[in-house]
Amino acid sequence: MIVPKQSVRNMRPYSPPTQGRGGKIRLDFNENTVGCSPRVLAAVTQALTEENVAMYPEYSEARTEIAKFLGVADDQLTFTNGTDEAIQLLINTFFEPGDELVTLSPSYAMYRFYAEVAGVRVTEVAYQIEDDLVFPLQSLTKMITSTTRGVFIANPNNPTGRAISVDDVVTILEHSPRTIFLLDEAYVEFSQISVLPLLDRYPNLFISRTFSKAFGMAGLRCGCLVSSAENIAWARRAQSPYSVNALAVAAACAAVGDIEFVANYVHEVVNARQMVQDALTRYGLRWFLSDGNFLLFDAGSRKQQILDQMKSAGILIRDRSHEIDGCVRVTIGTIDQMKLFITEMEKAI
Amino acid sequence: MIVPKQSVRNMRPYSPPTQGRGGKIRLDFNENTVGCSPRVLAAVTQALTEENVAMYPEYSEARTEIAKFLGVADDQLTFTNGTDEAIQLLINTFFEPGDELVTLSPSYAMYRFYAEVAGVRVTEVAYQIEDDLVFPLQSLTKMITSTTRGVFIANPNNPTGRAISVDDVVTILEHSPRTIFLLDEAYVEFSQISVLPLLDRYPNLFISRTFSKAFGMAGLRCGCLVSSAENIAWARRAQSPYSVNALAVAAACAAVGDIEFVANYVHEVVNARQMVQDALTRYGLRWFLSDGNFLLFDAGSRKQQILDQMKSAGILIRDRSHEIDGCVRVTIGTIDQMKLFITEMEKAI
Repeated sequence: MIVPKQSVRNMRPYSPPTQGRGGKIRLDFNENTVGCSPRVLAAVTQALTEENVAMYPEYSEARTEIAKFLGVADDQLTFTNGTDEAIQLLINTFFEPGDELVTLSPSYAMYRFYAEVAGVRVTEVAYQIEDDLVFPLQSLTKMITSTTRGVFIANPNNPTGRAISVDDVVTILEHSPRTIFLLDEAYVEFSQISVLPLLDRYPNLFISRTFSKAFGMAGLRCGCLVSSAENIAWARRAQSPYSVNALAVAAACAAVGDIEFVANYVHEVVNARQMVQDALTRYGLRWFLSDGNFLLFDAGSRKQQILDQMKSAGILIRDRSHEIDGCVRVTIGTIDQMKLFITEMEKAI
Repeated sequence: MIVPKQSVRNMRPYSPPTQGRGGKIRLDFNENTVGCSPRVLAAVTQALTEENVAMYPEYSEARTEIAKFLGVADDQLTFTNGTDEAIQLLINTFFEPGDELVTLSPSYAMYRFYAEVAGVRVTEVAYQIEDDLVFPLQSLTKMITSTTRGVFIANPNNPTGRAISVDDVVTILEHSPRTIFLLDEAYVEFSQISVLPLLDRYPNLFISRTFSKAFGMAGLRCGCLVSSAENIAWARRAQSPYSVNALAVAAACAAVGDIEFVANYVHEVVNARQMVQDALTRYGLRWFLSDGNFLLFDAGSRKQQILDQMKSAGILIRDRSHEIDGCVRVTIGTIDQMKLFITEMEKAI
């Protein structure tokens, strides 16, 4: 029998639901619930030639396009196979085994996941329910010491929902110029708070972006990692030269060419989020302010009832009670989709 | 300034040509030079729905399909983002930093690449030019000790070309039951020598397959790692649940459904390889037997002349002289493509 290395043996398995979601109302993974822009489909159709399929992907034109969209230089960006590869790449490039990574809890599971795979020590700073799950700025800065190699922050945070301000990020960055900071901006299109303008001032800042959420391209696996040209050159040294699908980069270019599609969707999500908040308030359920396309609420003793009702109605939501007692996370989709959600909530309560 | 970890600082950069290959006669990356099966394009077109693009990929049906094609159980297989992810996954799951990986030299660059990223020690066993680059079975088995954690072998080997027999693989496997053996069968469709039937007998055997070569899908990034169910379960614990593009797995299923396409292509490549061998013999150039869709030959003092001539004719071939003195590798395509190659060779010589 072949046994894995110690750190993998010790890992908790990460097993999100990965099957049978098609055709349902998917309010469980914070995807774009109406799909991608029609221009994305058109771009993939156009890119779908025998040569593009048979040939190893070429990224440089697409990189120019996306870098321009983000307002950075070409060499400040590398495409990644979703945000997941960005996280793994950062850890593989810059963290020795035993180094310390500080993250928040709860947050995106893959920070801990890839740290554990690499034998990196994880220190977690907990969001406090008694503080309404606001960003624990003070506890976090206290936790960052001279031996902290990196700090990974989702902004807005998932599943709690709130974004932190650019000023708060500056406070953290100023705290430790030798520590690597990843700001994972997977939901930035909803929060409109980005630290991209800080890149020039802080050589220790990395930002990851993804096309899996607002852009509606989770199936295509495309994201990117952005930092100084020097940092990105090191990361690319540790990266496979062909980690992103050729059709995915064609799709990404089309996606940033249809900002109106995303803006309209974000606008509807913000309105729908307000509607869901109001409904939850009516039911007397506590919910937590969100800057993303999802809402965490405390279903308390009615949690199982709600989950069962949603399941029977073909609406997928996500139980997060293993992280925050009694809590459930619902992705915010369109007004019509959230009306269905509210209807089922009413039946459950 | 943020400096990477020691092992990444020490890495030699791996920079294959990654730009401007479209529209040329691509005899440099061992791709399928006629593209993928039309059924692959049709399957991607069919899979290209808003839901499939927007939703995180689901693999279980495709996994069943590909496992059936390979004659293994579903849980003996995990999809990987090309062979590259299979290599990285094996190293990340089973190798501690400082562990020893034995590989051959020259061979596929990514074995050393991911080993170095992970701080794994690499021991190389060299193919000998005076032995006509035959597989160095004796030197290899001598090198495998009780402290060898793994041995990665490309079969057929790239860029040298020859495949080793199943019997030779058995000899190696019997040598060390506690060592991990990866047989990278990227070119198996051309060699027709697979060790898949050995899986049941050797719990330390892993096999990687790819859709990037004979199947003509390098742009889509899809491969798989196969072993015992137990080994694959460990590997999946260290793997992102969504590392492969949704369209790529749809394409893979279509690809294995059109075996005739691949068989016809392989048949033509074998004939074209013979034709190129004959031509090289006429020019008095030494070439090395190959079981893959490529041929390594010693261009000697005429190397630069040949490279320049091909370049001016829009034919891409690959200089491998940094690995084996004076040697160049040419991908074998169709008869017509290789006639063009031969015409340019004649001009160069």
